[in-house]
Amino acid sequence: MDIVKELNKLIHPGRISTAAAVISQHNHDASYHPAANPDVVVFPENTQEVSAVLSFASEHGVPVIPFGKGSSLEGHAIPYEGGISLDLGLMNELKTVGDKDGHVVVGAGLTQFQLNDALKKHGLFFSVDPGAEATLGGMAGTNASGSYTVKYGTMRDNILDMEVVLPSGEIIHTGSKAVKSSSGLHLSGLFAGSEGTLGVITELTLRVYPIPEASVAARAVFNDFEEAVTAVVRLRTAGLDLARIEFVDAASVAHVNRFANASYIEQPTIFFELNGEVEHLQHQIKRMEELLKPFHLAEFLTETDQTSQERLWDARHNLAYYYIQAAPTKRMLVTDVCLPISELADSILHARQAVEESGLEAGIVGHVGDGNFHIIAMADFEDANEVTAAKQLHKEIVDYALAHDGTCTGEHGVGIGKKSYQSKEHGTAYDLMRTIKQAIDPRGIMNPGKLVD
Amino acid sequence: MDIVKELNKLIHPGRISTAAAVISQHNHDASYHPAANPDVVVFPENTQEVSAVLSFASEHGVPVIPFGKGSSLEGHAIPYEGGISLDLGLMNELKTVGDKDGHVVVGAGLTQFQLNDALKKHGLFFSVDPGAEATLGGMAGTNASGSYTVKYGTMRDNILDMEVVLPSGEIIHTGSKAVKSSSGLHLSGLFAGSEGTLGVITELTLRVYPIPEASVAARAVFNDFEEAVTAVVRLRTAGLDLARIEFVDAASVAHVNRFANASYIEQPTIFFELNGEVEHLQHQIKRMEELLKPFHLAEFLTETDQTSQERLWDARHNLAYYYIQAAPTKRMLVTDVCLPISELADSILHARQAVEESGLEAGIVGHVGDGNFHIIAMADFEDANEVTAAKQLHKEIVDYALAHDGTCTGEHGVGIGKKSYQSKEHGTAYDLMRTIKQAIDPRGIMNPGKLVD
Repeated sequence: MDIVKELNKLIHPGRISTAAAVISQHNHDASYHPAANPDVVVFPENTQEVSAVLSFASEHGVPVIPFGKGSSLEGHAIPYEGGISLDLGLMNELKTVGDKDGHVVVGAGLTQFQLNDALKKHGLFFSVDPGAEATLGGMAGTNASGSYTVKYGTMRDNILDMEVVLPSGEIIHTGSKAVKSSSGLHLSGLFAGSEGTLGVITELTLRVYPIPEASVAARAVFNDFEEAVTAVVRLRTAGLDLARIEFVDAASVAHVNRFANASYIEQPTIFFELNGEVEHLQHQIKRMEELLKPFHLAEFLTETDQTSQERLWDARHNLAYYYIQAAPTKRMLVTDVCLPISELADSILHARQAVEESGLEAGIVGHVGDGNFHIIAMADFEDANEVTAAKQLHKEIVDYALAHDGTCTGEHGVGIGKKSYQSKEHGTAYDLMRTIKQAIDPRGIMNPGKLVD
Repeated sequence: MDIVKELNKLIHPGRISTAAAVISQHNHDASYHPAANPDVVVFPENTQEVSAVLSFASEHGVPVIPFGKGSSLEGHAIPYEGGISLDLGLMNELKTVGDKDGHVVVGAGLTQFQLNDALKKHGLFFSVDPGAEATLGGMAGTNASGSYTVKYGTMRDNILDMEVVLPSGEIIHTGSKAVKSSSGLHLSGLFAGSEGTLGVITELTLRVYPIPEASVAARAVFNDFEEAVTAVVRLRTAGLDLARIEFVDAASVAHVNRFANASYIEQPTIFFELNGEVEHLQHQIKRMEELLKPFHLAEFLTETDQTSQERLWDARHNLAYYYIQAAPTKRMLVTDVCLPISELADSILHARQAVEESGLEAGIVGHVGDGNFHIIAMADFEDANEVTAAKQLHKEIVDYALAHDGTCTGEHGVGIGKKSYQSKEHGTAYDLMRTIKQAIDPRGIMNPGKLVD
């Protein structure tokens, strides 16, 4: 069968491509995982077209791989079994801004940055902020989170409803526009984080928030790695109303200085944000200073100027790119474990030791308010020793997290990179996930090889 | 086959009962739904016993109906096809209080009141507060919520992990103790709200919160129903940090006065709670007063005394029981729609008109901060006219909610009472729910006849 010829009957030929440049845009992501070409890339304009493609693919057993911006760190959008790369980029409409209801309705191809640009004039913002310019459909697919998650929750927490096209081509809604519901099974939660293995998300109804009256950024610089980690736990459990609490190690501060033209002290640092009413903020900053007194700080600074704050958070978000710029011949492997807060200090100390033993160029950063941290490790994937070291480091970090009540991935998702840990993490529940996958996608066309088999 | 004889091989005979008194404790719930007897009631002591019962039931096609406290309002625990009523009451251990992690591990048979009593000395509380003394397993089963949900979320939002016994007898964990995860399919969300139709919840890891530094209750009494409803929407969308925002109509205030020995003005009233730091509270109360100025209030009072506050909230929680006490020969039908906030004012005004047209004794109350409200209607179920009126009223309210982007049940769940609305609310997604049910419980032993077929 000639797939392209068949697709031409369903979709305007101008939105179906096998051009080498288009294929290679859709054969990789932002990670170290090897590239693999799709047979064809399709750019649907609406849900009916997605439905037509899936019906066709189901009938003929053709793999379909949803594609947003290709910013995944775990190979989610790489078509290892060929087939159709379904690029949702044209379905990027901001359909409704429900000011009173605090929600928006968006096409799955809209990116988080586009959404926030559009929301500004309504005095609203969307809170889920992974570093990359990801699409909201992709972010739902991996249950993305980010620096604001400690206050505003993950992607899944902010989804009211999704329109999803099932492998059969049937179109469903997973929820409603009510902020809570006890009706039916919780399909929004099931499809969020399903990584395109159960269907294609085409539209999302998302919770958005009023831009706070004011915000303050604070920066606490420590002389000692261990003290910094202990302070994180102290602040996290003190009940402060923190909007962001980010740990950055000395190596990573050095990268910020180099690539973001900054001059922060190159020592373990915690970046905070508090937001809300001005009086409330002042009170909270005071409490934070008191809580930090027992520690030996090299510096404690607060920043109320909006531009300086944005510059700081941009630098934090861009950290992964700085590591890539610093080692252009290497590729990036990022760990993503998340542990209970009580296990966090020990686990980051363990991670630092593992990094040192690996001999790799690497830094530790993290959304530590949630117990989630990353090792950004650069390795030459042509060098067998470095590859072994990187994979060994990854395994060591995940094994530690699983042995201490944690998870192998806090926000990046499973894709192919965490798949070998699924059985260990979920035990018999992984069989149940397979049962669900098999029931919803019996032909196995949806993003084969990712998350579950 | 003699079920009891077979069960005797698995469970100590002292915890298997067919005594009339025990059967009749397990043949009804707190609603108007007709009673039906189980064949036998089993009281497992641990997860292995639950597993043994389910393996046996699966093999022989015997229905299993999980039972907590029987406080359901939609017939969830009534065994309409006979079988085994599985009473989790003995599995009520508080296993872990993770102070640093802000979570607890509990047996499914522990009640919300028992949990909160035990947490007090740790300076912690559990936030999900339906009116009844429900078990935490039952509350997870229906995705319960309550007056604190506007600030702290629903049951599902507060579950990190559950131990669940599948129909096959296999034991799984649905999550981990990390506060966020992108690993695997979201089984915690799927089993929360599945109403015992997919398996038996035996243990839960739940998020708990520090008891706030201070709290203030406020009471705004309106001269006019319409103004009260408009004020709710105004306050809700102003970004105030409200912990509770409860609307109570005049008829319901009258019931509170009569049965809780109070003397509130018998007019439409909003009860609030704000909690947090003292300074923050003062500022918020001031803002609330400003926002309420344009309305013609009969009274605005704040209450900082803890005992008075508790008395007020107990009265609110007990409202349904007051209606039952006031009409002891009648039975209670409670609607439970939830709509987007922008639709709330019109929907409550519509509800009031529908109540008046029904001729039934009824009141309107609600967790209006979430868009969720209830009509508590009393009807004589021996009187065909009253039954028709009650069912017509229910249908009218649900149809209105579904036509305005809402849901038929915000917190009580589907059971048998909302089942006829599932297809209309979920459309083709209801077929998918059936597919999932069929995949996980192919013999259909788990709580047959509820939620999905």
